[in-house]
Amino acid sequence: MDMRTSLRRDAQTIIAGAIAAVSPEEAVKRALRGRTFLGRLVLVAAGKAAWSMARAAHEMLKERVDTGIVITKYGHVMGPIGEYELIEAGHPVPDGNSFAGTTRALELVGGLTPEDTVIFLLSGGGSALFEVPLVSEQELRDITNQLLACGAEIREMNTVRKRLSAVKGGRFALACAPARVYSVILSDIIGDPLDMIASGPTVPDKSTCAEAMAVVKKYGLVLSEHALELLAQETPKELFNVENAVTGSVRELCEATGRECSALGYEPVILTDTLSCQAREAGSFLGSVARTHAGGGRKLAFIAGGETVVKLTGHGLGGRNQELALAAAEEIAGLDCAVFSVGSDGTDGPTDAAGGYVDGGTLSALKAAGLDLHTVLEDNDAYHALKAADGLIITGPTGTNVNDVAVVLVNG
Amino acid sequence: MDMRTSLRRDAQTIIAGAIAAVSPEEAVKRALRGRTFLGRLVLVAAGKAAWSMARAAHEMLKERVDTGIVITKYGHVMGPIGEYELIEAGHPVPDGNSFAGTTRALELVGGLTPEDTVIFLLSGGGSALFEVPLVSEQELRDITNQLLACGAEIREMNTVRKRLSAVKGGRFALACAPARVYSVILSDIIGDPLDMIASGPTVPDKSTCAEAMAVVKKYGLVLSEHALELLAQETPKELFNVENAVTGSVRELCEATGRECSALGYEPVILTDTLSCQAREAGSFLGSVARTHAGGGRKLAFIAGGETVVKLTGHGLGGRNQELALAAAEEIAGLDCAVFSVGSDGTDGPTDAAGGYVDGGTLSALKAAGLDLHTVLEDNDAYHALKAADGLIITGPTGTNVNDVAVVLVNG
Repeated sequence: MDMRTSLRRDAQTIIAGAIAAVSPEEAVKRALRGRTFLGRLVLVAAGKAAWSMARAAHEMLKERVDTGIVITKYGHVMGPIGEYELIEAGHPVPDGNSFAGTTRALELVGGLTPEDTVIFLLSGGGSALFEVPLVSEQELRDITNQLLACGAEIREMNTVRKRLSAVKGGRFALACAPARVYSVILSDIIGDPLDMIASGPTVPDKSTCAEAMAVVKKYGLVLSEHALELLAQETPKELFNVENAVTGSVRELCEATGRECSALGYEPVILTDTLSCQAREAGSFLGSVARTHAGGGRKLAFIAGGETVVKLTGHGLGGRNQELALAAAEEIAGLDCAVFSVGSDGTDGPTDAAGGYVDGGTLSALKAAGLDLHTVLEDNDAYHALKAADGLIITGPTGTNVNDVAVVLVNG
Repeated sequence: MDMRTSLRRDAQTIIAGAIAAVSPEEAVKRALRGRTFLGRLVLVAAGKAAWSMARAAHEMLKERVDTGIVITKYGHVMGPIGEYELIEAGHPVPDGNSFAGTTRALELVGGLTPEDTVIFLLSGGGSALFEVPLVSEQELRDITNQLLACGAEIREMNTVRKRLSAVKGGRFALACAPARVYSVILSDIIGDPLDMIASGPTVPDKSTCAEAMAVVKKYGLVLSEHALELLAQETPKELFNVENAVTGSVRELCEATGRECSALGYEPVILTDTLSCQAREAGSFLGSVARTHAGGGRKLAFIAGGETVVKLTGHGLGGRNQELALAAAEEIAGLDCAVFSVGSDGTDGPTDAAGGYVDGGTLSALKAAGLDLHTVLEDNDAYHALKAADGLIITGPTGTNVNDVAVVLVNG
């Protein structure tokens, strides 16, 4: 087996293993393992991964769960789960089903005792799917539009909208009291700001009424008397009945990637799990890391998780992971190392690839195909170049979404 | 002492120690330490650092050197060195003194025996300062202008020009034969391609006559019969009498930085010594590395050497090191860590600073000064922002030039 085949095979193994480790199912099982619960057990799952998270919980807890409800996106219920109520609703724009499903969840967690527990499984998309507005649907839409039109920041928008909701900003946890809440949060936001994921239904809210009113004043928002009264009602600043377990985060993706690299004999070095610079420049940076260590006699794996951004300069086909990988090709040309990057959800940009892979042979493969690396990068056309150089990573949809991971493999 | 003071002091210590370790003097002393020489000893030093390199060699070898000659830039001779001949000449454009000095060096290394040694000390600028053209000065200038006008690549230019020189492309080493040549090369080019530094007077030449003729044909160059005959004369492909020691490279700068970090209790991790991406994006990348490891309980130092590029989007004042550091300020705001970057020559852009320093307190210091980080970066105005946030690193000229080094310090 030549150098390229071996590194390429290692990359595939690492990607498959790391993504499996951060699947919603594995994340829920990890969070529930070894836990015991007293009293009644109510399970509420909301978000795009709600169905698979709930099914994983059901596999572990079986009849121990007294009542279960799943609120997910249309088309995301894949079959019955025990006796659970399964509701499909609107995303990214909430609809009547979102409100009805969430209202039903509030009913199920009402009337519990301090011995009882609510298991709350939250994933991306929960902001739209898990919502009961305290103003009319029409006024909520109107206020959202005003905030969008005036260019308010996402944090400013959330400061206002949390106060117009019966479940956001920690209010769902309040509704569960006196029961205990064990919240398993599948994160897809870099750095895991808990109160940002679905506006934190079980997380104490840091924003204040004064800040909400300042936003109204700053942008000259027009609100009804009722909405203004709601803005004056404070969200919970402390929650004593809640334990939040963040899981499936990009940090776990990096750690799982490190374990997979280790199993193949590479010493793993996690550089970052908050990567956010330009894809092309991150590729250049990681390429220079590879180049420096190639031939040094140690099998090394440098790991960078996060989410880069693509700077559009052309009209080609690609995605941030493909562009990152391709941008490393020149630095590592001829060396016994590889750079690859993959989106954990299995999609990268508007393509059928999850990411890209380059190694010491990629640049010459591109040249043989008559492609100039710089021109391709300027065109943002990583997809076709990687396709020509056998550098597309295809996984299909993975059912998870915990950002991206980029890896430098140095073969010693 | 608060967090900022301590990290800032560590940064200063690391920078001062690392730059001292890669000074031309230290580099020469390291290269000569423990060496013994038989027979006659001739010392030839050429380049911008020739005087300080020769002086360091003289301090170690004293009267052991039989004859010494220094060819450096106008204004760079700081006093006598033993009985050495000291010649100042033109740079970046070679002049009569360059040719006369180099001709004198060729005389000094003629007539030696296999027991004798030529110590050749080469530094940046050697391409102009160390030259004896085989065509007239006027034709050399004419050919150079033709190559520049047609947009030839630097490698193409060197392939032609090496053949028009009596010393480039390994020919100086050939002129020293049968004596042995010990060449100490102070590198300022990323990745150290030996044949690129001053066109490699003591390095076997990889380019061929056929390649030189291909360049002539490709660009339709007009050459005299004599010049065409020279292009047909092959440069040495193997040199048996030469030992080349590259020193003062950016790799040594990174290693010296690592030792300084180690001495202060940080575990050093050298990421790369071939960094070449955009300054701002490298800063973002390193900021995300800092953010991921801050608070993890380990004192860590991540080191990246090389030379970034500034993408100009504004008209402010700054340099690539200052921009890199400033671009990390947002990621590390509030954290017990620092990011700094410094040019080893002590100058960064058209400023009096050598580089920039940011830590967890920089962003709030900028805000307190009424400065918006993003606006400053868009203006390429890192100098004034860092000045306001006590983030300028001032060293003055250091007398060395081995690219830049950027460091992430994580305080545990």
